[in-house]
Parts: sequence; structure tokens; C-alpha cells
Amino acid sequence: MVWNTNLRWRLPVTCLLLQVAMVVLFGVFVRYEADADAHWADSKAQHNTSDLENEFYYRYPSFQDVHVMIFVGFGFLMTFLQRYGYSSVGFNFLLAAFGIQWALLMQGWFHSYHEGYIHVGVENLINADFCVGSVCVAFGAILGKVSPVQLLIMTLFQVTLFSVNEYILLSLLEVKDAGGSMTIHTFGAYFGLTVTWILYRPGLHQSKDRQKAVYHSDLFAMIGTLFLWMYWPSFNSAVSNHGDAQHRAAINTYCSLAACVLTSVALSSALHKKGRLDMVHIQNATLAGGVAVGTAAEMMLMPYGSLIVGFICGIVSTLGFVYLTPFLEARLRIQDTCGIHNLHGIPGIIGAIVGAVTASCATTDVYGINGLALAFGFDGFKTNWNASMQGKFQAAGLFVSLAMALVGGGIVGIILKLPVWGQPADENCFEDSVYWEIPEEPKSTVLHPEDSTLKPSEP
Amino acid sequence: MVWNTNLRWRLPVTCLLLQVAMVVLFGVFVRYEADADAHWADSKAQHNTSDLENEFYYRYPSFQDVHVMIFVGFGFLMTFLQRYGYSSVGFNFLLAAFGIQWALLMQGWFHSYHEGYIHVGVENLINADFCVGSVCVAFGAILGKVSPVQLLIMTLFQVTLFSVNEYILLSLLEVKDAGGSMTIHTFGAYFGLTVTWILYRPGLHQSKDRQKAVYHSDLFAMIGTLFLWMYWPSFNSAVSNHGDAQHRAAINTYCSLAACVLTSVALSSALHKKGRLDMVHIQNATLAGGVAVGTAAEMMLMPYGSLIVGFICGIVSTLGFVYLTPFLEARLRIQDTCGIHNLHGIPGIIGAIVGAVTASCATTDVYGINGLALAFGFDGFKTNWNASMQGKFQAAGLFVSLAMALVGGGIVGIILKLPVWGQPADENCFEDSVYWEIPEEPKSTVLHPEDSTLKPSEP
Amino acid sequence: MVWNTNLRWRLPVTCLLLQVAMVVLFGVFVRYEADADAHWADSKAQHNTSDLENEFYYRYPSFQDVHVMIFVGFGFLMTFLQRYGYSSVGFNFLLAAFGIQWALLMQGWFHSYHEGYIHVGVENLINADFCVGSVCVAFGAILGKVSPVQLLIMTLFQVTLFSVNEYILLSLLEVKDAGGSMTIHTFGAYFGLTVTWILYRPGLHQSKDRQKAVYHSDLFAMIGTLFLWMYWPSFNSAVSNHGDAQHRAAINTYCSLAACVLTSVALSSALHKKGRLDMVHIQNATLAGGVAVGTAAEMMLMPYGSLIVGFICGIVSTLGFVYLTPFLEARLRIQDTCGIHNLHGIPGIIGAIVGAVTASCATTDVYGINGLALAFGFDGFKTNWNASMQGKFQAAGLFVSLAMALVGGGIVGIILKLPVWGQPADENCFEDSVYWEIPEEPKSTVLHPEDSTLKPSEP
Repeated sequence: MVWNTNLRWRLPVTCLLLQVAMVVLFGVFVRYEADADAHWADSKAQHNTSDLENEFYYRYPSFQDVHVMIFVGFGFLMTFLQRYGYSSVGFNFLLAAFGIQWALLMQGWFHSYHEGYIHVGVENLINADFCVGSVCVAFGAILGKVSPVQLLIMTLFQVTLFSVNEYILLSLLEVKDAGGSMTIHTFGAYFGLTVTWILYRPGLHQSKDRQKAVYHSDLFAMIGTLFLWMYWPSFNSAVSNHGDAQHRAAINTYCSLAACVLTSVALSSALHKKGRLDMVHIQNATLAGGVAVGTAAEMMLMPYGSLIVGFICGIVSTLGFVYLTPFLEARLRIQDTCGIHNLHGIPGIIGAIVGAVTASCATTDVYGINGLALAFGFDGFKTNWNASMQGKFQAAGLFVSLAMALVGGGIVGIILKLPVWGQPADENCFEDSVYWEIPEEPKSTVLHPEDSTLKPSEP
Repeated sequence: MVWNTNLRWRLPVTCLLLQVAMVVLFGVFVRYEADADAHWADSKAQHNTSDLENEFYYRYPSFQDVHVMIFVGFGFLMTFLQRYGYSSVGFNFLLAAFGIQWALLMQGWFHSYHEGYIHVGVENLINADFCVGSVCVAFGAILGKVSPVQLLIMTLFQVTLFSVNEYILLSLLEVKDAGGSMTIHTFGAYFGLTVTWILYRPGLHQSKDRQKAVYHSDLFAMIGTLFLWMYWPSFNSAVSNHGDAQHRAAINTYCSLAACVLTSVALSSALHKKGRLDMVHIQNATLAGGVAVGTAAEMMLMPYGSLIVGFICGIVSTLGFVYLTPFLEARLRIQDTCGIHNLHGIPGIIGAIVGAVTASCATTDVYGINGLALAFGFDGFKTNWNASMQGKFQAAGLFVSLAMALVGGGIVGIILKLPVWGQPADENCFEDSVYWEIPEEPKSTVLHPEDSTLKPSEP
Repeated sequence: MVWNTNLRWRLPVTCLLLQVAMVVLFGVFVRYEADADAHWADSKAQHNTSDLENEFYYRYPSFQDVHVMIFVGFGFLMTFLQRYGYSSVGFNFLLAAFGIQWALLMQGWFHSYHEGYIHVGVENLINADFCVGSVCVAFGAILGKVSPVQLLIMTLFQVTLFSVNEYILLSLLEVKDAGGSMTIHTFGAYFGLTVTWILYRPGLHQSKDRQKAVYHSDLFAMIGTLFLWMYWPSFNSAVSNHGDAQHRAAINTYCSLAACVLTSVALSSALHKKGRLDMVHIQNATLAGGVAVGTAAEMMLMPYGSLIVGFICGIVSTLGFVYLTPFLEARLRIQDTCGIHNLHGIPGIIGAIVGAVTASCATTDVYGINGLALAFGFDGFKTNWNASMQGKFQAAGLFVSLAMALVGGGIVGIILKLPVWGQPADENCFEDSVYWEIPEEPKSTVLHPEDSTLKPSEP
């Protein structure tokens, strides 16, 4: 099939339409939260509180770390492909910039809607970034095989479905999922896998040469990996309760990620016939520990519990890259460019299970009386909360997320399959020059630093 | 003309003289602010305040974000040139390291001078970084065409003029400009454009081959772009009032930047005959939204107002790259290497206008009584402040900044034109090897990972 | 000698054994600190304190900056070698991920052990990162010449010795060393130098071609340099006392680093026969100012004092790279890949001396009564503390650190010399393909962006 990949009208019109819609909807619906509104000075005078009690100071540093993860972390992680760096970073930038606006609206309607307005503050910004994180995850599965118009369409739908799913989990099932093992990673991964399954390209082998790294592209990708890895403690603690919960979530994530690195390295070496390490595993599997404590990080998982989770996930994720991804591609026709199933899919499910188990073991012994009530968000004197029920609801949350991802991903995949979005031909996948003006390679590659080639003569 | 580009004595002498001057002036003038002085423990005991009230905790995370923008953001943004990466990052590092010291003094004399001493704290560090930001902007116009000695000279003068201009705006005209649309961007851009106009090189076409990107250099530049984009909310909120103003400034900047990405992409694609995206636009125009809410971000601009500003700036900036920059070069002899006119110049002016309009619409309805007084820095019961007057002063600030930039840039340009600073010849512009020891390309390019080439044999 | 570099069993077994040991030890010993434990809600209710008083908010932003320094800063700083980027970033990642876990235990036993448990909070995370920082320093000396198994073994021992040394300094000698001039840099550098001295390779010249940079690798290294440089104020202030001490430490470090850049550039140019700058100096010597205020940054060093320290260190460090490193290699058989002696060794000693002198000059005039007591950690009404004694103990701390480094490094060097760890042959040093699966260079290097090569035809 011959595709028309000229986006000259499709991409501008899509961007402009979406952005105009955002302006209008923000105009109608979005206002500042009390902590970000200038009236705050009056209310502060009235209640005699300190500037420091502004939510900004509790959350802003974490917000910035999460922001780096979404734009630099995910963006550069995907630059490992030899000829797809512009698109990896650039399309991720584009879809995330649109997605955060739409997420502010969708999540706002569900969670911050009062008296006809959505009231946004720093926590909304974090949640919008989180929501977009799930789109970045899904992008990993279809990386190199779609046009930016398709990505914007997918973002539009996925953010919508994410918000519905999140509302069901957090508000209806009253599930705890501060780091998003279920809402972000499981949902994002299985959504993306379903989309790529529907977009299956039997002729993709024609682009296989470009579906590999080169030396420098792997180093660019490590920028992404490391910023994700380093800031993941902020990711999992960003919207936890003030104080001990944020503190604990950061510690647990730090521990889980550290353990995950060692087992990823161990398996990577053990699975290579000469014991050599594979950059794909170092770039990806080392992060699985962060995914898998997403739900339980703010709970009393204990540092050793976190280490165990990281330990297991490094192994499972690396095994997934070596055995499962080729199997999925060969047998189930799931072409998962970045191996998101190994980094977000399975670890997300593990994270949901760890969360359910940890929640179901919660006692006042471990949490204290106020601590338990705070941690699980119920009134301290309400007697009908019990840990085992919470655990069951947590488990239910996992199944809801999976169902939403599979159904939603199916529908969106079918929409994206329409041959009108400017998608690349099978032989032009993983290639920047389809959508980007690419600089010519310099003719006389590099000037040699011999002085003779330089005019400046010394007197 | 044949230039002597050997800096063996000129650069070391310049650096050492400037640094010795800094040591002496710091010795005479600079002391710690109360919050950073060990006597704080005594005053804390006396006033019974908390450690947390230390200004450090309000501003330090934002400071670090701004710091990253100046050194990594601006430094890497300019690495897009194929053979000028060392100089982009290295010279930016050098001029910024000198500039922040000189700015601490200059701004200190104007704003933090008490009883014979400049008292520095974290806010001074932020402001020094801001001031240097305007030099980094101007550097963008002359990138590749000047020697590091010229850059140090320019920094010396520009920081001085920046501080005078800032003093006129903030202290005499009592203008609000927390994110520096006028003081940093407009001033920096038109200063730099005037300098490059005076340094016009008719023979620059001889280096045109090197004035382009290569594949990898564009990816390095995206590191700069993304760190600027992500941390811009910190930039615009870093020195705002505590509490709601910082919070609001971050939200507005986040919104404006997000909108700007979509319209930049839209225009970039629409203006290419095959609808392809141009990295130059993605690297630069996407940031214009941050510049253009610099003045108004801390005001009650409203999230939709921010989106509109970003929307417009993405369009205007991209159009500028496509049509205005070539026009300026061909007709006005303004050789603007990085296109700072499109990223900082026009968006800076837009930002000043948006700020003036927003300020002139301020009412107690929108801000509350205390809020209005706080936001515009007047006594709440003073009756002679009025919004329309504030708007007029804001507008006056724009014209003062432009005038200072043009006159100052003219004088500094003439100084830099003297043929004694080691500037490169026209045919050696945009070339690192003039000022740097460059590694030879490896002879046998890369070792192939065939085992045969590696000695270690397995027993 | 022919080495077996196949790590298929050695590396996985080492990683898994170490990680299992961590899980078990964490299970037995590690619990949350009060501020990170869910019982905090109860104790908060009891003491009527605010969420903000949680240590998390004082330290977490600094922690994240330090975290970036360890993983991105040190990791990318070492990517300057043309064929050792994977190993630089990847092995640094591996050793740091293991090291932080072991450091949490070792430092915990010495400093946070109560009632049978180590109680970890955010300050422990920072200190663990600090401890690993000293391993990263030592790694710089042996970079390219060891296997990852050797690095893990070295980390195991060095973290242990670091913790003992730190305990002697901080707890027995009651030395102040918040930024670790002695504990981290001096100890790390001389430990690493001793190890590399023992691992001396007479045939290393066979790999000399690879012990150089290429153009792009130097830019990757600048990412490391800049993140280290920018976040060093956080490094030196991260564990200082709340309030003025953290604030002051950040200011002093900022000043010292700025001065250091100018003198490094001056010397780099002055020492080149054509006045050209050398990337090695810009990447390394510019950081020496941060090392050398490590001890004194939180003291009343004064901004001009910091400038003087930075001034001197830029000069000394650059001279070291030009003259001392070749001398050490030729005469003392110390093969110091990254020149850590110039960046961490000498500046560390200078830092210790500056700290001792600054401490011995401390008076209540300069610090205030409470301030002096707080700064040096004694009871304000205790009369037997005196500044000169503190200065002497500071000096003693330097000698203890040096002694520990030399003896410890000697023992560990001998262990690492055993021919069982999979170290590379002399002719395969500085080469990623020994331990990594390396992507083949693309056959048809790059697709030219000619439209003809792309199928999509436009209708």
C-alpha cells in the first residue's frame, strides 16, 4: 500500500483545532485554585496562616521532577533508535504538550469541579503530567510506526479514557494508587499494546535495519533512563499525603529501583552467551522497580519489601525482553517497539498486586490509629473500613484498568487504522525523514584541526 | 582581513583580571544576608520563628531550576551547530560564570546595599542568574562569530547596563516584571541584535556550510530546549511573592508553554512544502510562550489568557524564523545566528504588552483587597495607586528597555568591533577548532565488536 | 597475559549474591525513621506540629539534586572516552545502585541505629548518595581498566571503609565536613589512586588510541560536568543544619565554582602553545572549586573567601592536569584515567585545610552565641569548646582520611589484582565491546533525506 505521508494540512489543522478547543474550554471552565488565586492574601489574613502552608511548597519540587520525567525522561528514552531521534523527542513533546491541557480539563471535571469551574493548582499539574505519562507509555509500543496526527488522536482518546478509569478507581472503588501502577502503567501499557496489535504491520521487517540502536543513540537514551530512574521517587510521592506518606514513598521507590538495577544487570549478563550486557535491558528493565512500587510506595511496604519488589521486577522484566517480546511479536502479532510490556505492563500488574496485598495487611499496629485513617483516606472513627476489603477493591481496580485498556485500546486502534492519518509505509518506519526536514550530512565530514586549514596566521 | 585568533595572552589576562577584580570587590562589599548569616540563630531565638521561614526554603528549588536553564538550557540549545558544540556550551559556561559574579555586585549595589555592604541571599543568586540570562540571549545572536574575550567584554558591559535598566524599571517606574519579559528578554534580544548588526560580516557566507545542524547536534540542542521548556515555570515564578503569586506564575507559564508547542508545530508543518517539521522551530518557537508570559505570569492572567498568549507566540515566532530572519539578514544586515529575535525579541515585546494590559485591568474584584496591594506592591490603604497608571508605567518600561538595548548595544558593538579581541575570520566562523584543541577523528573509526578483534580468549 | 573476560557467571552471581544479602540485612535491620513512619500522624497530633516540619521538606529537593550528580553527573562526566560510554554510564549506574544500599546499612549502623534497628529517612538517602560519590571518584582513576565485578567488589569494601572513616571523623573527632572535602573527595581520590597504582598496567599504551575523546563524546561529558557544577551548591548544603547553614553553604559553593571557571579557562589557554582551550580542563578543573569548599561552605567563609578558594583551585587543578598527571603516570606508575587527583585529590586536601583554618578562626563575633554553638554542634553554654582545638581536630581528620585511603586502597587493590574478576587485557582497555553487546554500525550509514528513497508518493 502506498501512503500519503504529507502532513501539510492534516497536522496543522489538527493542532490548531485542538488548541482552539483548549482555549475555549479553558475560558469557560478553568480558574485558579484558592492557593493560586490572588484572593489568597485575604483568606490568609483571615485565617492567620503562613505563606508556607501554600500547597505550592509541598508539591512544586516534586512536580518539576515529574515534568522532567515526562519530557526528557520518556522523550530521550525513546531516542535509542538510530534514525528516529527527532521524532522520539519531538512527537513526545507534542503529544505531551497537548495531553497535559486536555488532562487538566478531563481530570478537572472529575475531581476539581466546583460551582461551575475547574480549580487548578499545582496538584492538578502533577496529575495532568501523570495522565500524559500513560500516553507516553503507550507511545512506546507504536514508536516509529505512526504519524504525529495519529499520536494526537490517540492522546485525545487515551486521556479521556484514563480520566474515566482513574475516576472509577480513585473515587468509586476508593483505591489507593499514588504512583499509578494501575492507572498509569498497567492502563497505559495494555492500551498501547492493544493499539499496536490492531495496527499490526506484516511488512515491518522491511524497516528492521532501522529498528536498532547505534552507539551514540544508546547514550542519548541513557539520558532518558537516568532521569526517569533518579526522579521516580518524586513520581511515586508527588501526590501522596503531606508528611510521612510523601517521605515514605520516596524511600520505598529509592530502594526498589536500586535493587532492580542489580538483578537487571545479573539477568542481562546471564542470558547472553558471552556474558555481555545488553543496553536494552539497562535502559529499561532497571526502571521496572519504580513501576512496581507505584501503588504500595506510600504504604508501610518497608524498605526490605521494596527491595524484594525491585529484585523480582528486574528479573521478570529482563526475561520479558529476552523471551516474551519476540514471542508476542511472532505469535500474537504484537509489535512492541520499546518493549513496554516488560517495563510497564508486567511490572504494573505486579505493582497492583503488591499494593493489594500490602493494603490488605494494614493494621493500626503498623500505621497507628490516625496513620491508618490518613493512609487509606477514611474517617478515623468510621468502623466499617477494613483492610481486607481495601485489598479486594485494590484488586478490582487492576481488573477495571485492564478491561478499560483492552476495550479502549481496541476502539482507538481501529480509529487509528483508517488510512487517512499520514502513517508511514512499512519500509519507512523508524525513519525521521518522513516527517522531518533532516540536515544533509556534511560533505567534507569534519574539518581537521590542522592549523593549515585555518586562515588566521600569526604575525 | 587576517585576524590573529591566538588567545594565549589575551584570554588568560582577561579572565584573571576580571576574577581578581571580583575577589577584591566581593571582599570590600559582599556579606551574607540575615537569613544566610550565622547570627540568624540568635535572631531566630529572639523572634521565635521557625527554621522554615528561612527564605532558602521558599526559593532554593526554583533557583536550582533557573540555574539549570542558564547553564544547560542555553548552553545546549546552542549546540545545534555541527562544529560549534564545545564553544556553545563552553563559552556560555564561561560568560555565565563571570556574569553571575558581576551581577551579584551590580544588582547588589542597586537593590541590596545597606550600611556599606551588599547582603546576598538566595534571591540575589536567582537575580544574578536572570541577569546573565539576558547575556545568554544576546550571545545567541553573535554565536559563532566572536571570541571568548569579546564575550567577556560584552558580559561586563551588558550586565552593567542590565542592572541600570532593571533599576529604572523596578525601582523608579515601579514596574512588575517577575519573569523578565522586558528586563531579560526584550533587553537581551535587542541588545544582541544591535551588537550583531554592528559586527556585520559581509563575507559570512564563506562559513555557511558550518551554520547548519547535523543529526546528532540537533539532539543535543533538544536537551537545551527541553530543560528550558520544563523549568520555565520556575523561571517566571522564582522571585514572585511568596504563596499564591509563585503558584499562579507557575501555572500560567505551564499553560502558555503547552499551547505554544502546538501552534509552533502547526506552523512549522504548514510552512514546509511537504508538510515536514523543522527542528529549528521545535527547538526555539516552542519556548516563545514562556518569554511572553514573563511579565504577566504572576498576575491574574487566567489559565485561558496564558493559553491565548502561548497560542499567538507559537505562530508569530515560527513565522519569524521562516520569513523575518532571512529578511533581517538580507535587508537590514542583521545576522542573527540563533534567531533570538523570534524567540526573545518579539515574544518579549508581546510579553510586555500583555503585562501592561493585564496590569491595567487589575481590580479588587479579581485580586481581593490585600491581594491587589500585594500583587502590585503598594500599601493596601494607599489610595493613589490605580491600575491604568500601572499599565502606563509598564508600557513605559518597555520603551526604556528598548532604548537602553539599542543605545547600549550600539556602544558595546563598536567596542567589540576593535580588531584586537581575537575574533575569527569570516571563513572560520562557527568552527570550534579556532579556539579549542579538537580530538582527531579516530583512525580506524570504530572497533567492530567481532570477538576476533578482542584478545581475551576463553579457556 | 590472556584474560577471560566472559562474565556470564561471575557478574550475575556477584550481583545476585550481593542483592540477596541486601534484602536479608534490610529485613533484619532497616525500618523507617519517625518522619517517614505512618505513626507520625499520631505523634503529630500529640505534639501539634505542622506537616511542614517533616524533615522531607527541608532536604528532599537537595537530595534529588545530589542524586542527579551521582548518576548523571559522574556517569556522563566519564563518557568522554570515545568507546567507553556504555561502561561509563552503565557501570557507574550499577556500582552506585549497589553502593547506596550498602551505605544505608553501614552508615545506618554507625549513625542511625536505635533499639536494634536502623531508622532511615531522607537524610540517610543523601548520606548514602554521598558515600557512593566517593566510590564514583575512585572509579574515575581506574575507568576503562576494570570489570564490573571488580567495581562491585571495590564498592563493597570502599563503602565499608568510607563509613568507618566517616564515623571516626564525624563522631570521634567531631569534625565538621558537610560537603565531604575529606570524607568524600580526599578519601575517594587517594583510595582510587592507590588502587590504580597497585593495578598498574605496563602495557596500557596499547590502548592509548582509545584513551581519548571524540567530538561527540566530549559533549556528552559536558552534560555530566554541568549537572555536577550546577547542583554542587545542593551537594555542599544538603546535610547542613536547617536554615542559615544550608543557605550559606549554597551561596559559598555558588561563588567558589564561579571563580573556578574563570581561572580554569585562563590556565587552560595560557598553557597551550596556541592559546587554545582543552576540553579536559573545562570538564574537570571547573569543578574543583566545589570540592574545595566542601568542608567550609557551611561556615562563615564569606563570599570573597569562597571566591579565593575557587580562584586558587582552578589554577592548581588545571596545572595538575597539564604537569602532574603525566608525571604521576611516568614516574610513580599511577595511571589516573580521569585525573581525579586534580579534581578531587588536591582540591580535597585544600578543602580540608580551608575548613581547618576557617574553623579555627570562628568567634562569637562572627557567628553569634547561638550561631557558634549550632555551627560547631556543641552546647552553647559548654565552655570547653574552642576554635583552635576545632581547627586541630579538622586537620587531624584530613590525616586520618588520607591514612585510611592509602591503607584501604592498598588492601583493596591487592584483592582486585587477583586474576579472577574478568578484567580486560591491556590492549582492550577503554573498550565497551568487551562487556557490552555493541550495535553494528549501520551498513548504509544514513538514509539521505532525498524524497526518492522514501516510498510515500503524493497523489
